[in-house]
Amino acid sequence: MRHLLTLEGLDRETIVRLLDRAERFRKEGAPRDLLAGRTVLTLFFEPSTRTRTSFVLAAKRLGADTLNFDLSRSSTSKGESLLDTLHTLEAMRLDALVVRHDENGMPAWLAGHANTDVAVINAGDGTHAHPTQGLLDVLTIRQRRPDFRNLRVVICGDIRHSRVARSDAQALHALGVKDIRLCAPRAMLPESLREFPGCTTREDFDDAIRGAEVVIMLRIQKERMADAQYPDADDYHAHYGLDMRRLALASPEVQVLHPGPINRGVEIAPEVADGPQSRILDQVANGVAVRMAVLAELLATRA
Amino acid sequence: MRHLLTLEGLDRETIVRLLDRAERFRKEGAPRDLLAGRTVLTLFFEPSTRTRTSFVLAAKRLGADTLNFDLSRSSTSKGESLLDTLHTLEAMRLDALVVRHDENGMPAWLAGHANTDVAVINAGDGTHAHPTQGLLDVLTIRQRRPDFRNLRVVICGDIRHSRVARSDAQALHALGVKDIRLCAPRAMLPESLREFPGCTTREDFDDAIRGAEVVIMLRIQKERMADAQYPDADDYHAHYGLDMRRLALASPEVQVLHPGPINRGVEIAPEVADGPQSRILDQVANGVAVRMAVLAELLATRA
Amino acid sequence: MRHLLTLEGLDRETIVRLLDRAERFRKEGAPRDLLAGRTVLTLFFEPSTRTRTSFVLAAKRLGADTLNFDLSRSSTSKGESLLDTLHTLEAMRLDALVVRHDENGMPAWLAGHANTDVAVINAGDGTHAHPTQGLLDVLTIRQRRPDFRNLRVVICGDIRHSRVARSDAQALHALGVKDIRLCAPRAMLPESLREFPGCTTREDFDDAIRGAEVVIMLRIQKERMADAQYPDADDYHAHYGLDMRRLALASPEVQVLHPGPINRGVEIAPEVADGPQSRILDQVANGVAVRMAVLAELLATRA
Repeated sequence: MRHLLTLEGLDRETIVRLLDRAERFRKEGAPRDLLAGRTVLTLFFEPSTRTRTSFVLAAKRLGADTLNFDLSRSSTSKGESLLDTLHTLEAMRLDALVVRHDENGMPAWLAGHANTDVAVINAGDGTHAHPTQGLLDVLTIRQRRPDFRNLRVVICGDIRHSRVARSDAQALHALGVKDIRLCAPRAMLPESLREFPGCTTREDFDDAIRGAEVVIMLRIQKERMADAQYPDADDYHAHYGLDMRRLALASPEVQVLHPGPINRGVEIAPEVADGPQSRILDQVANGVAVRMAVLAELLATRA
Repeated sequence: MRHLLTLEGLDRETIVRLLDRAERFRKEGAPRDLLAGRTVLTLFFEPSTRTRTSFVLAAKRLGADTLNFDLSRSSTSKGESLLDTLHTLEAMRLDALVVRHDENGMPAWLAGHANTDVAVINAGDGTHAHPTQGLLDVLTIRQRRPDFRNLRVVICGDIRHSRVARSDAQALHALGVKDIRLCAPRAMLPESLREFPGCTTREDFDDAIRGAEVVIMLRIQKERMADAQYPDADDYHAHYGLDMRRLALASPEVQVLHPGPINRGVEIAPEVADGPQSRILDQVANGVAVRMAVLAELLATRA
Repeated sequence: MRHLLTLEGLDRETIVRLLDRAERFRKEGAPRDLLAGRTVLTLFFEPSTRTRTSFVLAAKRLGADTLNFDLSRSSTSKGESLLDTLHTLEAMRLDALVVRHDENGMPAWLAGHANTDVAVINAGDGTHAHPTQGLLDVLTIRQRRPDFRNLRVVICGDIRHSRVARSDAQALHALGVKDIRLCAPRAMLPESLREFPGCTTREDFDDAIRGAEVVIMLRIQKERMADAQYPDADDYHAHYGLDMRRLALASPEVQVLHPGPINRGVEIAPEVADGPQSRILDQVANGVAVRMAVLAELLATRA
């Protein structure tokens, strides 16, 4: 493994190895000098303090030097080509480049054009992929349900535009989950299931959630709701929000996940977000551990 | 001590222990690994590069990992509730959270709602408290005047709206100072002395400063001057500015303090700010040491 | 050497010692603890993520604590005098202050007004000097041409307003280069050669480049082109851009340098920037090493 750009096509063994390593880091801590002398740079074209902070903490806790490249003040804003920025940063000797971009495939494009053996980690690109989110979600699920085989999972929200849904579906599929239900109003369902291996679609949330052991709720954007004929957040909540009534339709040992930040009362009711089935804060904690595992996997074995 | 939210009610022993530790750090340096592996996050809702830098340096010099949480680019700016931000950050495993906020009591509110044993340090909240400023001010005074008992102190400026004045008064009172004079135009005097233990008020600065061994000048905001019928900075300076003439009314061994940044020629004359009685730069140096002591006190003894 | 403010008048021995140290850092790596416990603060009044990142990486790789002072949120933006900011930062105990400013002489002015023995490093001031750029340029040249004596160098672009041109010329002169040709339209040639020791001027680029072993292209600003009667970038490129045709006029072993970020198709053709004669990315790599050498030189020998 040289980069982490997508979970699409990643084999079960690699995913399990990353999850095991992340779990070990959570339980036993990590060697502070594993990445001493290595440089991890975050390059976020979309702001996300939360994800950036998670990556920076992961890198620091393994002893790496971390830098945020401030795009708003850089020559990229003066019209320097992205490729020139990439090669300039590489020339300063980077070990890993953590990239978020609103265009699909930009991290892969950067990885393909790298001059050096810098490891590119996709921290979310457009609607395409958010691989560390996919990994942290399956790690979270596994902590309560180690066996993925007979698991029933619902992913609910704006599936069509969600990189989280794609990476989750791919990770779950690789781990052997057979029943993955994508639930959304028609306008938010994907046009093709090519990127959603082993998934089926539903429009009725009550129907979709029945018996599910895992419900992954996605953050909904107001503009998207309007596009899908739900200009009113209450109306959206009535049809696609996760409240206590709907949660009771799921399995008694259901786990509720959400990548955050949550819109309380829109896609998720506060009492669900804060209830005993919620794994939302475990996801955040697992996020740091998974990112440590990814950095360790990509960097620690190199010369 | 789990948090540092205010100096109100803090006992003399705790204050002296913190001051002694800060003094030791200044003289002997600090062990670079005391807080190795700990994470200190600064969360500033009001910008203050100066105070933030002081905290960050303090944390780094004890070996902690430091992070600035950039609110302007975070999901807090997208409407995420402050509580969700707090719990998300906690889930990433924080050891200390350094908070500045323009609302009174916000750091205490965060401390009260924490899920973990994160230590909350108030870096200034509204008009309520600025405890590390209070500590660094008494440390500065003590370096030249170890005995607080017969000390005469004047605090001059916008007392009513000053968190520095409150924390200073509380620290001085705890250390046994009997004569604390709050001096300001009536509109800037506090409506009640409840938060100013052992203090008296004056409106005439010439009268207040007479014989004082310590004069603490506060930064004045232009809008406040206008509210207090001093639309003109020169006029304010004539009545409540510290110049050489007034300084001569104080004790010969007077010490002049100011929390900075100073408005030269408004609340303080340049020749006083730069003169031999000025302790302003000592305050800055003591600020880093006091913040190191607070971090060490709150974090070093924990598991 | 206490500060690094300019290369003007710096002796050959000092320059060679810095280059040798930088070369050693590139080849053998650097001791991670050389500057442990030291504090390096960057203070950039002109934004430059690229140069700032280079300095920060250099400091981190020697084990120093690094801080960026965010001017846009500091009290400097509230009208605090620069001198008060300097002394405040010094009081927090700085070992080095890396300054970029758009006014000539500002780093030297800060160095002259420092209260402590902080080392001031000029990271570019106005049109005056950019000493680390000068050093990294001669280091880059030396890697392929160890002997400077019979070297022919062209510097082409807006010489008059270029701190890079000044520092390059001074470094080359100190190392014994006899033939330094400054090439630009008349309006971009310097009014005096006082700051350009040993240099001659040319207006015709074809003439200037003939036989040159080194061509240093400068970044051109659009506003300057218009001032020099080249409102059209294509027209400027035709007269003062480095393309393959012109490059063929130079020596067969010519090296092409550019301080970056480059304007592709304006002062330099893409195929030259990316071609085998280009040393642009080597310059970036050497930049980190030179800044490490400068920090080591200024800080490592102090108490």
